[in-house]
Amino acid sequence: MTEGSLAVIPVLGIGEIGPGDSIADAIVAAVAIDDDDVVVVARTIVSKAEGRLVSYDGTPEQRQAIVEGEAVRVLRRRGELVIAETRHGFICANAGVDFSNVPDGSAALLPADPDRSARRIRDGIERASGRRVAVVISDTFGRPWRRGVTDVAIGVAGLVAVRALPNERGASGPSMATCVADELAAAADLVMGTAAGIPAAVIRGVDRSWFGRSSIRSEVVRDPMEELFR
Amino acid sequence: MTEGSLAVIPVLGIGEIGPGDSIADAIVAAVAIDDDDVVVVARTIVSKAEGRLVSYDGTPEQRQAIVEGEAVRVLRRRGELVIAETRHGFICANAGVDFSNVPDGSAALLPADPDRSARRIRDGIERASGRRVAVVISDTFGRPWRRGVTDVAIGVAGLVAVRALPNERGASGPSMATCVADELAAAADLVMGTAAGIPAAVIRGVDRSWFGRSSIRSEVVRDPMEELFR
Repeated sequence: MTEGSLAVIPVLGIGEIGPGDSIADAIVAAVAIDDDDVVVVARTIVSKAEGRLVSYDGTPEQRQAIVEGEAVRVLRRRGELVIAETRHGFICANAGVDFSNVPDGSAALLPADPDRSARRIRDGIERASGRRVAVVISDTFGRPWRRGVTDVAIGVAGLVAVRALPNERGASGPSMATCVADELAAAADLVMGTAAGIPAAVIRGVDRSWFGRSSIRSEVVRDPMEELFR
Repeated sequence: MTEGSLAVIPVLGIGEIGPGDSIADAIVAAVAIDDDDVVVVARTIVSKAEGRLVSYDGTPEQRQAIVEGEAVRVLRRRGELVIAETRHGFICANAGVDFSNVPDGSAALLPADPDRSARRIRDGIERASGRRVAVVISDTFGRPWRRGVTDVAIGVAGLVAVRALPNERGASGPSMATCVADELAAAADLVMGTAAGIPAAVIRGVDRSWFGRSSIRSEVVRDPMEELFR
């Protein structure tokens, strides 16, 4: 393959994940990990492994109560759709509560600290495989102005989330750095699918210089003072 | 490689593109194209090939005049940064005018019709290579609430831009369809770099069912009536 290429590899055969299960062990059992792999894990199984399921009776009233319990601020409402800010600073539908990819009678809250979840999974994969890896935890968010959802990074370990664009003149303002964590989450989603039983992917070929300490919360979540759209 | 994997391959050696140059021919000369490849092309070279450069003297006054000439509506301003809606319905910094990746003394406007540009490049690649391909034209956009820019699709040919998520319960509202065109643009950006002279990438392994007629303008740009954030 051409120098500089990436491979985006679905992790097949992970099976059901329940409270207390080790996602790291499940991944290492399912795929041969290499040094410098980036392992992208769908937030759905992280919520399940961390026991973040709450009971949900299917009524609009309880739906609203669960969402409002997770929201620190509601930005917009339209019918059942609520766009809200979470404790982590994410702005997303339903304050990140997942009513879809869960057992009947339940709803899944976001992990309490997705960066910490990513570090724990990274440590577990490194221990079980003996390889140095980075981990991205992805979730599916809508966005203003464009139809369709895409996957973004809600947690990261071992990978610099935002990289300055090299050799650009940078005349276009303060934002000319690429959120590679989000681009890796998006790339992984092309081969993942919760409904298809593929809650993780490996991205192989990422340059070694991209690895390093980082955090979605501190690097990607924008400070309200910088924000033009509230 | 595991069944269902994708390869994301940088297209090296395209060289400088100027007005009237064939991007399709440059790509086919640089990389061996396969059936069902998705070819992602950076908007920078599309603007150059289509002669969308205007002269720019470097003054804030002219910068503002060029941006306002491209804007149909300004959403926000902060200092030099202008977030504006373009004729195409894109909402982005500087109304899509690129002051960075261009020869000194010039600025690059968006292609007039990026879906049409994508179709033209797709037809040219198919003619020159004898292969059936899809083309995505990508550009680098900021987004609210998250730091860092990512690449998104501004034009598409031969690929369904937004795909319904299969087998989901779809309880989370109207947006549960994935914008795979944006995810492909993001994946390609991981190996591309205008400054590094890599303005295109090939994504190989995309399922045949993803190919079909589509348009970013009609499928991805959100109708103002649907929009919660204006």
